[in-house]
Amino acid sequence: MSRVKLLGVSGSPFSRRIEWALKIKGVEYELIEQDLQKKSPLLLESNPIHKKIPVLLYNGKPIVESLVIIEYIDEAFEGPSILPKDPYDRAIARFWAKFLDDKCLPAAWKALWSKGEEQDKEEAYEVFKVVDNELKDKKFFGGDKIGFVDIIANFVGFWVGIVEEATGVVLLTSEKFPNLCAWRDEYLNCSQVKENMPSREMLLAYFKARAEAAANK
Amino acid sequence: MSRVKLLGVSGSPFSRRIEWALKIKGVEYELIEQDLQKKSPLLLESNPIHKKIPVLLYNGKPIVESLVIIEYIDEAFEGPSILPKDPYDRAIARFWAKFLDDKCLPAAWKALWSKGEEQDKEEAYEVFKVVDNELKDKKFFGGDKIGFVDIIANFVGFWVGIVEEATGVVLLTSEKFPNLCAWRDEYLNCSQVKENMPSREMLLAYFKARAEAAANK
Repeated sequence: MSRVKLLGVSGSPFSRRIEWALKIKGVEYELIEQDLQKKSPLLLESNPIHKKIPVLLYNGKPIVESLVIIEYIDEAFEGPSILPKDPYDRAIARFWAKFLDDKCLPAAWKALWSKGEEQDKEEAYEVFKVVDNELKDKKFFGGDKIGFVDIIANFVGFWVGIVEEATGVVLLTSEKFPNLCAWRDEYLNCSQVKENMPSREMLLAYFKARAEAAANK
Repeated sequence: MSRVKLLGVSGSPFSRRIEWALKIKGVEYELIEQDLQKKSPLLLESNPIHKKIPVLLYNGKPIVESLVIIEYIDEAFEGPSILPKDPYDRAIARFWAKFLDDKCLPAAWKALWSKGEEQDKEEAYEVFKVVDNELKDKKFFGGDKIGFVDIIANFVGFWVGIVEEATGVVLLTSEKFPNLCAWRDEYLNCSQVKENMPSREMLLAYFKARAEAAANK
């Protein structure tokens, strides 16, 4: 029986972050796939406050919130570092992780499921511009190698393009965001990304069905 | 000239957290008081994305977001630890810090500046109940000694009571939240708290003026 269990959803960016972090450390784990429409007693008991995935169970003890879990994995297990080593670089990485989760993700999600008029996209454009500036002259967020912030940015790198295709709302164009789009190209070309993402085809079918359901409402 | 500068506001809970963390480490710093009505070029240049205090400048390099700054201070300077040492305890502390900032603070602030009807307070009651449960059988968040989460909870420990007095909207009663109120009593009795809080009298006058201005709108 594995000492490390992950209560997650394989199509979720938050859950995939954790799987990626565990793989970097070489930690064996068991993914216990969750049905969010019918939450399991184990999920409700392990995360009684937020009732959300992902939850990492280590020897039965739960840890929740994907950023908190990744820092935990980085501190609790041997293996290559996930966060940078230098305190200043760590602070910068934590800043961008927070910015991506608190600002980019909600703004992008809102825009992607809007009517797609220009005014619906303004907030997303604004935060993506900030990220685009940050990526000027940089291959990845931390420099030449894929790292912590890139793992957190999986939503922008992988999911946004799929939801764009499903809903027809386009946010990321290389005219508007040349650096962010160049980052995405590099990102999608990485073997680590390919190994840590769900099937594009399956996700696209899922989001297309969701978009159709929303249109028929 | 001090190598560590803090762009802050002495009446702000976010700014006070940083001062407290610096004092724990015994780091000398210069507080550069900011006028948020008229933001200084130094603030805008140091935090161009959020344009907010606090900003820590270490040898001129800026670090922003109070939780990020405290982790930086803990990692960059010698002295007593601010976060717990054990990875699991660190994860739990980070979870509560995030819960306090993302859930408690906005809910409490909204309720405190509402009309004070019971339905305006429901969200705040809900999150305070969660915190109250967590504090059952505990003196402080981390156990017997004041620590990281208590520093983050300065808003609940110190500011909420003052704003309650200024606006007349009461949220924290020992009938509803016995553990949280017991924590607050312990908290306000600590010498570290007394040394790290602004003048109650001055803050009360400030929030009373704000409450009057809001009432006259």
